[in-house]
Amino acid sequence: MNTFTLFVMGPAGSGKSSFVASFAGWLENNEIPYLTVNLDPAAEYVPYTPDVDIRAYVTAKQVMDEYMLGPNGAIIAAVDLTLNFIPGIQEEVAESISEGYILVDTPGQMEIFAFRRSGVEVVKELTIGQGGVAFIVDAALSKSPPTFVSQIFLASSVYYRFRMPQLNLFNKVDLLSEKELEEMVNWVREPTSLINGLEKELIGEEMIMVRGLLESVKSFLESFSIYFVSTKISKGLDSVYADLQKIYKGGEDYEIPDYMRKSE
Amino acid sequence: MNTFTLFVMGPAGSGKSSFVASFAGWLENNEIPYLTVNLDPAAEYVPYTPDVDIRAYVTAKQVMDEYMLGPNGAIIAAVDLTLNFIPGIQEEVAESISEGYILVDTPGQMEIFAFRRSGVEVVKELTIGQGGVAFIVDAALSKSPPTFVSQIFLASSVYYRFRMPQLNLFNKVDLLSEKELEEMVNWVREPTSLINGLEKELIGEEMIMVRGLLESVKSFLESFSIYFVSTKISKGLDSVYADLQKIYKGGEDYEIPDYMRKSE
Repeated sequence: MNTFTLFVMGPAGSGKSSFVASFAGWLENNEIPYLTVNLDPAAEYVPYTPDVDIRAYVTAKQVMDEYMLGPNGAIIAAVDLTLNFIPGIQEEVAESISEGYILVDTPGQMEIFAFRRSGVEVVKELTIGQGGVAFIVDAALSKSPPTFVSQIFLASSVYYRFRMPQLNLFNKVDLLSEKELEEMVNWVREPTSLINGLEKELIGEEMIMVRGLLESVKSFLESFSIYFVSTKISKGLDSVYADLQKIYKGGEDYEIPDYMRKSE
Repeated sequence: MNTFTLFVMGPAGSGKSSFVASFAGWLENNEIPYLTVNLDPAAEYVPYTPDVDIRAYVTAKQVMDEYMLGPNGAIIAAVDLTLNFIPGIQEEVAESISEGYILVDTPGQMEIFAFRRSGVEVVKELTIGQGGVAFIVDAALSKSPPTFVSQIFLASSVYYRFRMPQLNLFNKVDLLSEKELEEMVNWVREPTSLINGLEKELIGEEMIMVRGLLESVKSFLESFSIYFVSTKISKGLDSVYADLQKIYKGGEDYEIPDYMRKSE
């Protein structure tokens, strides 16, 4: 299939659905075919109209009522139940698109999807054509060197979980001052400035885990694309689109990793 | 205060509450004073009787009914509302304990607490005496080199978010074969074997992010204590207790980090 399946992940509140809405709008304007898939059975509102929607099969609310579960248990159960409905979703997707982008909005609470068993399984089954991950974090929660480094580690953690091409988006830059944004951009350009900032902040505390950190952060920043965006005001999204198009047009290098095939 | 406040964190389903129950049992048997605090407003069942309980102030279910929210929105709102009830909780805690351990069970969905604003605020306000984090992950989801490394990055991400002394527990080792556990223990002892295993698994895929990885993982493993435990069958918990006691008796080196004080 000549499609690109993009799984949109990120912690609760980072702006996953907002990114899907914004990217869908851009594809629409550029007359590129696309399909939106909502995989969050607990979503109460999504700022786009999903073409395929897990909520047609199962919702957290239904599970709550039917199995007499509390809100938390119901969300987990509903996400796990998603696996049962994958054949139906695959069929809906296959019927509706043969080229272009499949934008998959994943469950609001990232950890239920990414750090439990079901997520990798769902990604394996739903990657049609090439696959990739757009990982979104909240830039307004990443303003200091330690919190920025924390997000880089979180992104790394997701990368080693899925091992797919990954674009990393620091979202909500509209909430940053110009100076804050400049500083962040500089951290990416010159990781040494980030590590220096980190060391400065950690003075007086136990300096642990700093050995290897510069190399490791540099390696991340050199291997992955980082974008500073605002899905709310559609800022900085152009280069995301351009890079995605490059991967999409680039060919078959980016299908699902071997380890996903092995278990088939 | 001569107390040690231990915040128990980890992804959904990793075994936080089970650890609190198990550690409380150990303290009981050893006649060390302790207090259990449940901070999860969406908890439906906890395997211990919390001495102080956020659910006496707010529950996700109440928020759902009162504000007409869905399960997901209700959980997030309830966790955020926790901040309003911190003074009451502080008072309850202060009245009940003046030395020993305060075991704080955090919300089931880690990211709502750790990767949004409220978590750091709550940790700051509730750390009485010394503070620390017990970070729990599921060993059964960490059996391959990439997934193990993924968990190490997740633990690093949490460390840079809170900057408190952190113990890292790979829980549920009862679900591993003897060979799997041996391999994992060896990865910690000889990080080179972990990286070699990782490189082997990644053959054929794009080898990215490997530069600096060995140093970075080594640095993590040397800086932090890693434990392989089963809270279910109380396996491996002795050394966790012993190390916690060492920190607790060790004195005042481990109070809340300066950055938390700054914003006071």
